[in-house]
Amino acid sequence: MAIRVTVWGENIHEHTNQIVRKNYPNSMHSTIATALNRDGGIIATPVTLQDTDHGLTNSKISETDVLIWWGHIAHDQVSDTIVKRITHAVWSGMGAIFLHSAHFSKPFKSLMGAPCNLIWRNCGEKEKLWGIASGHPIAAGLPNYFELKHEEMYGEPFGVPEPLETVFISWFAGGEVFRSGLTYRRGRGKIFYFRPGDENYPTYHDVNVQRVITNAVKWVYNSSPRLEGATADCCEHRL
Amino acid sequence: MAIRVTVWGENIHEHTNQIVRKNYPNSMHSTIATALNRDGGIIATPVTLQDTDHGLTNSKISETDVLIWWGHIAHDQVSDTIVKRITHAVWSGMGAIFLHSAHFSKPFKSLMGAPCNLIWRNCGEKEKLWGIASGHPIAAGLPNYFELKHEEMYGEPFGVPEPLETVFISWFAGGEVFRSGLTYRRGRGKIFYFRPGDENYPTYHDVNVQRVITNAVKWVYNSSPRLEGATADCCEHRL
Amino acid sequence: MAIRVTVWGENIHEHTNQIVRKNYPNSMHSTIATALNRDGGIIATPVTLQDTDHGLTNSKISETDVLIWWGHIAHDQVSDTIVKRITHAVWSGMGAIFLHSAHFSKPFKSLMGAPCNLIWRNCGEKEKLWGIASGHPIAAGLPNYFELKHEEMYGEPFGVPEPLETVFISWFAGGEVFRSGLTYRRGRGKIFYFRPGDENYPTYHDVNVQRVITNAVKWVYNSSPRLEGATADCCEHRL
Amino acid sequence: MAIRVTVWGENIHEHTNQIVRKNYPNSMHSTIATALNRDGGIIATPVTLQDTDHGLTNSKISETDVLIWWGHIAHDQVSDTIVKRITHAVWSGMGAIFLHSAHFSKPFKSLMGAPCNLIWRNCGEKEKLWGIASGHPIAAGLPNYFELKHEEMYGEPFGVPEPLETVFISWFAGGEVFRSGLTYRRGRGKIFYFRPGDENYPTYHDVNVQRVITNAVKWVYNSSPRLEGATADCCEHRL
Repeated sequence: MAIRVTVWGENIHEHTNQIVRKNYPNSMHSTIATALNRDGGIIATPVTLQDTDHGLTNSKISETDVLIWWGHIAHDQVSDTIVKRITHAVWSGMGAIFLHSAHFSKPFKSLMGAPCNLIWRNCGEKEKLWGIASGHPIAAGLPNYFELKHEEMYGEPFGVPEPLETVFISWFAGGEVFRSGLTYRRGRGKIFYFRPGDENYPTYHDVNVQRVITNAVKWVYNSSPRLEGATADCCEHRL
Repeated sequence: MAIRVTVWGENIHEHTNQIVRKNYPNSMHSTIATALNRDGGIIATPVTLQDTDHGLTNSKISETDVLIWWGHIAHDQVSDTIVKRITHAVWSGMGAIFLHSAHFSKPFKSLMGAPCNLIWRNCGEKEKLWGIASGHPIAAGLPNYFELKHEEMYGEPFGVPEPLETVFISWFAGGEVFRSGLTYRRGRGKIFYFRPGDENYPTYHDVNVQRVITNAVKWVYNSSPRLEGATADCCEHRL
Repeated sequence: MAIRVTVWGENIHEHTNQIVRKNYPNSMHSTIATALNRDGGIIATPVTLQDTDHGLTNSKISETDVLIWWGHIAHDQVSDTIVKRITHAVWSGMGAIFLHSAHFSKPFKSLMGAPCNLIWRNCGEKEKLWGIASGHPIAAGLPNYFELKHEEMYGEPFGVPEPLETVFISWFAGGEVFRSGLTYRRGRGKIFYFRPGDENYPTYHDVNVQRVITNAVKWVYNSSPRLEGATADCCEHRL
Repeated sequence: MAIRVTVWGENIHEHTNQIVRKNYPNSMHSTIATALNRDGGIIATPVTLQDTDHGLTNSKISETDVLIWWGHIAHDQVSDTIVKRITHAVWSGMGAIFLHSAHFSKPFKSLMGAPCNLIWRNCGEKEKLWGIASGHPIAAGLPNYFELKHEEMYGEPFGVPEPLETVFISWFAGGEVFRSGLTYRRGRGKIFYFRPGDENYPTYHDVNVQRVITNAVKWVYNSSPRLEGATADCCEHRL
């Protein structure tokens, strides 16, 4: 059975920034969904901040195996009710992938419990992503490293908790490093943070980036039934 | 220089439950503070939910090296402003120790990003705490295991993130197990969760429990200056 | 394509201990292989200590996706050459599952770099295995806990390195606890240690135990091509 | 009481390589020991490969709280008996710090159970070491990053197990990254791997490098009594 992916996009830059419109005439979120749909085992649909319930109604969430999130300048516009819905869905087994500036999104910060801060510079420098966790499924089919000609620099220290595993580390021409691929588990849900994807560059058209995201969808996917009901409650266990 | 510890107590059971009053005529939080003060390298002061700002004014927080938290039936009464203050202090370097039912406190859940749920039973059964991380400073001076004659059972699965290290695992007479000593780091702050301490039993008078808490204070303590200012911001790093 | 599993058995108790012969007329290793072969996606074959190269010739190793190991009283009889062959295969991507007393086997100790010691008692007491890592693929299809009426007790502290994740913790009637399901990665290979399986009890006939081992085979399996050649060498990387 | 540190040096390059003799007229191991001795809480003594028992007699080992190891071209000359002695000492509580090419030393590989391989290039390029684990004691007193003008490049993937925490990541001018500060625990002993220190460059004279090694000595140091006797045995635990 195909993995049902919901690709959430903030959908603001696409309408306000000419460079972004040029890079992504079909929006970043649709570009990612289209790339995923080339895999016969995935059905990906895009939703946006502007949709009802930000596109994440109870119904949609229950039919989402993996949620992918890209947000940047409107983190504060995301409703706390929806953040709670996402968090509980991850705890119940939904996989989640957070891309680039989503490191500062409400859902990611909520699941990490950490500052998630970093240093940055945006001058379109070269980034080299190195594979760290040799043989990790998320790195399957990728070379030891791959390059992105132009990207926004993110640098350490990255204020996230110690991950289960570090999958990628990035090198930037300006002198910084960054743990750009990290795995976590919260409750029953698996989480992958993946750094690349500043809106000013055509990163999500890159075949290696698309390969990573596709692999990550399969890795965070939990084939067990979603844990229904109140996952956050404590149950009395009689003798 | 002495480690400044603030012991936060919910301070409700002490006034409403005769058994608790009998176990802790001076309150749980004062009992813990008194035990800590026997160590010449610690200065511990108790504060409560009912104090101004729950006893955690900006001034108090900045003078707190380690915060110990015990809460149970009034988690929802803790102000979100104070929770944020605590969280930022931990991210800046303040150590934190969460005891027993604090697994469901707002600060702990906020720092974990996980459900933190468990199964439970309260019939005063025997608990045996086994040391797991051999040689860990938090287990210093303790035998391979120690017993608490009567405690409330907490059982797995415990919905917390994978810890840095598991320091203790508990065995309960009724058949359950529980990871009862866990270490974490969030930002610059170190965190220790320690399970024992149901209000109906004199657990905090136990010398082994007091030893663990004393060791934990020294382990979570960060001697580096607190990171002032905006720990959660991202800084632009020019070439 | 089916996962090719080699089940390695010490094959001594089966010939010297009447109880074991009664529990496992077809040997422990064949019992495990038979159970695995009920899964259409697995082809399992048993080999023994007494076979040429302990059944692990270069050819056999290269055709083994997952190695399962059960050893107890003849760890020292395992040739260091074969241990090295196994270690390099794991580093190259072969999955490995170590059962029960294999905690003290040469291959496991070699891959852990730790003492791997524990406390024990063999009086056939009840064991309850609790699931810890909620939603972990290795625990798929299993209840929150399952019981083994009679087993040999293994107790903490278990001298292994901190795992990637703790999947099961056992409770023993006599008062001990033990991390009975642990995951690791070494090089490209994934490793799972699973405690149950003293030869005096029919443990490998238990459906839950068989389920765990089947799940574990699928989890440690690496579908990427084995990394050929000298995985342990360092390569010069010119500018 | 002062921490007793034994600094082990291979002591070959110092006698065969003019550049090394120029950088380290007093040898690398003595240079490190001298730097450590400036700290009033440390007593450091150098020993070499050529000494009896490689300077690590039973007596010396029992009086060593922390062992620092630098080796490069003579790993194979280290006696397996001494390697076993070191390993058991670490398991019993002795701290260990492995520097640079010691990633391929017998003791380190033995404690890791992993290939410990990497990619390299030696053309004296710039290295920038970034602090990753914010507030970690090993990074105390250091800036967010520091530079070494000339070093040998080590690059990922680094074939080590997932660490407890990553403390530093290095950036190299040629385009590579490397996890250059990693913490582990094996048995009761804490371990720190620190990358810098190719013999052709005056790295161990660098004040930041000296600061890291001094901090690391204090972090790996275990103040509890060494666990005497058979740490690797399993003890029967009667009811």
